[in-house]
Amino acid sequence: MREEKLIKATWVLPAWDREPLYQGAIFIRKERIIEVGPAQELRERYPAVPVEDLGEALIFPGLVNAHTHASMTIFRGLAEDLPLMTWLHEYIFPVESRLRSEWVYWGAKLALCEMLRSGITAVCDMYLFEPYVIRAVEEAGVRAALGEGLFDFPSPGYGPLEEGLRLTEDLLRAFAGHPRIRVMVMPHAVYTCSPETLKKAARLAERYGARLHIHLSETAEEVSQCLERYGRRPVAHLEVLGLLGENLHVAHAVELTDEEIELLARKGVSVAHCPESNLKLGSGVARVPEMLEAGVRVTLGTDGPASNNDLDLLSEMRTAALLQKGLRRDPTVLPAREILRMATEEGARALGFERCGRLEPGYEADLAVLDLTRPDLAPVHDPLALLVYSARAGAVREVMVAGQWLMREGQILTLDEEETRHWVAGIAQEIREFLGKS
Amino acid sequence: MREEKLIKATWVLPAWDREPLYQGAIFIRKERIIEVGPAQELRERYPAVPVEDLGEALIFPGLVNAHTHASMTIFRGLAEDLPLMTWLHEYIFPVESRLRSEWVYWGAKLALCEMLRSGITAVCDMYLFEPYVIRAVEEAGVRAALGEGLFDFPSPGYGPLEEGLRLTEDLLRAFAGHPRIRVMVMPHAVYTCSPETLKKAARLAERYGARLHIHLSETAEEVSQCLERYGRRPVAHLEVLGLLGENLHVAHAVELTDEEIELLARKGVSVAHCPESNLKLGSGVARVPEMLEAGVRVTLGTDGPASNNDLDLLSEMRTAALLQKGLRRDPTVLPAREILRMATEEGARALGFERCGRLEPGYEADLAVLDLTRPDLAPVHDPLALLVYSARAGAVREVMVAGQWLMREGQILTLDEEETRHWVAGIAQEIREFLGKS
Repeated sequence: MREEKLIKATWVLPAWDREPLYQGAIFIRKERIIEVGPAQELRERYPAVPVEDLGEALIFPGLVNAHTHASMTIFRGLAEDLPLMTWLHEYIFPVESRLRSEWVYWGAKLALCEMLRSGITAVCDMYLFEPYVIRAVEEAGVRAALGEGLFDFPSPGYGPLEEGLRLTEDLLRAFAGHPRIRVMVMPHAVYTCSPETLKKAARLAERYGARLHIHLSETAEEVSQCLERYGRRPVAHLEVLGLLGENLHVAHAVELTDEEIELLARKGVSVAHCPESNLKLGSGVARVPEMLEAGVRVTLGTDGPASNNDLDLLSEMRTAALLQKGLRRDPTVLPAREILRMATEEGARALGFERCGRLEPGYEADLAVLDLTRPDLAPVHDPLALLVYSARAGAVREVMVAGQWLMREGQILTLDEEETRHWVAGIAQEIREFLGKS
Repeated sequence: MREEKLIKATWVLPAWDREPLYQGAIFIRKERIIEVGPAQELRERYPAVPVEDLGEALIFPGLVNAHTHASMTIFRGLAEDLPLMTWLHEYIFPVESRLRSEWVYWGAKLALCEMLRSGITAVCDMYLFEPYVIRAVEEAGVRAALGEGLFDFPSPGYGPLEEGLRLTEDLLRAFAGHPRIRVMVMPHAVYTCSPETLKKAARLAERYGARLHIHLSETAEEVSQCLERYGRRPVAHLEVLGLLGENLHVAHAVELTDEEIELLARKGVSVAHCPESNLKLGSGVARVPEMLEAGVRVTLGTDGPASNNDLDLLSEMRTAALLQKGLRRDPTVLPAREILRMATEEGARALGFERCGRLEPGYEADLAVLDLTRPDLAPVHDPLALLVYSARAGAVREVMVAGQWLMREGQILTLDEEETRHWVAGIAQEIREFLGKS
């Protein structure tokens, strides 16, 4: 493995707030970016460094999927167009009660194949049997912030809650200082975790300097249940319990009042906006422009593939932008730059990857390459607009994390896609048999 | 060219209202479908017919893009996130005033490459220099219903309006009885065509038994302008002028009252719903569930790639479904079957292709093939859900129109993509130079 390389392409977009470079190049040493600039200049400055020419392509900062349940690929398309409660109680929960570690492992591998093909280099994952997601992540070579989903009722993954906390603590110890994996403490939601559970989770996170991740204010029903049970809305509930802070990353945040938005901003809480899942489940539309205006760190997530039904963050960027423009009846709302910021730098910071999300000296070499020879990515009037408004998963040809190619010329180097699909097909068959669907 | 063939795949979805067939096959003679059924049975019944095995794939009815301006690919990403009037008056209109026939021709070819890759087999196109779009359509081999955009001010395509009407009449005569091309009369909109122009267009259509296509009630501004100028809303305006009828196909229909929806249903007018363009331009969201409830024929269109920014009808299906579910806060609204109906059979009927949009005996062999070996299309719990909620342009591997393969194993057989991209890159450069952008 060479320690230094120079990669070049017709276009390099160093960051959401930078102009794209025509005929640009990036000089990488080990896992770090040393320099970004015109290809000609860099070649002259580093004549001994081997050059990899990616041709007609756009190199951009790897995307950060700030909220998902990767292994739920095994449920993709299982039960569609149903009321949320029917979907959960007749399909997802019964099947999840039979969940096994191999299901989670192969489901995560399939998800990682899909995410690499969408240019995702870092992901925030919450699920059950999370050590098996970690195994898949280690094989894939991507960056991840993840944790075992914690709730009061017994889990098929760890059994009683105390075991879930213990498992989380074990993982926090085992992966302390890991270059690519951050373990987070992940209480599932205010409606599945008692105040005591939430406080325990917060204390555990504090003890290890870890981040917390939770679903928050996803639906109107969650808010009214919380009001009924605790006499306060979910955000206030977390405030009272001492969870609101810079180490808290929440998913969805669809149902927020002006005051709640202000509070999240003031406390430094980050939000994973998941517009496609929120639409598909009929949850509504998060108030993203207001959150940005207030200074909330907004990131972008696909949510799980059972409610999306994909892990394509390129498509998620587009949906996030179009949705707000249409509903506000204003095409200037959420411009492409702002969207890319959410999907790169803001996502990286929310997950604690401070040196990711930009292609600049000193940053990790986490990047993806868009194939500009496709008819749907021509002509190139504006590389940023192409990336945000026209690109989709299949158009990503290369992915690099920490200076290592994970996908090259459309081939994933670290995972066996064929084998993965084969295993998942078998698991899917088992699931349908259990549900009496085939 | 063999006159008979049998194509088979792991899945065949014959129509929006049919169950998918596992290990299905289609027997095709010349341009027609003779039979659809289990592969095993068909092979036994027709042992002498050569079999083409498409492997792990889903054969589905070719999609119908019911409203676009294909050649506007040349403007893709040219000016983003701008107020509509700035976009039109500072970018699109100035450049369109310099429009040349070669621009339209190469822009249309690029669009056709992109549409084939999205599984589109039929398209409704309105633009300028439309004879050059027709030339591109003939080369590509797709089905199309198209016409020259007519308006009162002089056109770079045909000059004064009378010439536009004459051109349309010439095309109506030249393509009468063409197996794949239907010429339509296409007055642009109520705000660009005087009542006299609209009546002339309607009379021309009547004389030739042709269909009419117009942009209608796209924005609140259009409605208020029409009210101001004519004392009535756009739908009533067309009614008074005698345009509402079964041969009228309108694009957008975002701003409709309950009474207008009832009227469109009663008159048999079809609507091309273009949700992504309506969102991106800040126009709003059409009332699709109410239209369907009232019995309006609703079809699906991408609109032009300058306001979308793609021609991916798979993505448009998904957006159409998710949008209504999210805004109505009801995941059961617009189920996958209803969406596929809009994108296939309803689109075909609106364009006058009565024997398209289903894979059934007697129908034209217009179909597309989804590659089920992709990680984002696994596992196969439900082929219909995969098609509507998970598939996107790059996942289409084969396309057939009227029994002829136009794309095979990801290669477009009828158009030269490389050459087309080269020409469009040159045109794009000219456009930027004219605008002083490069």
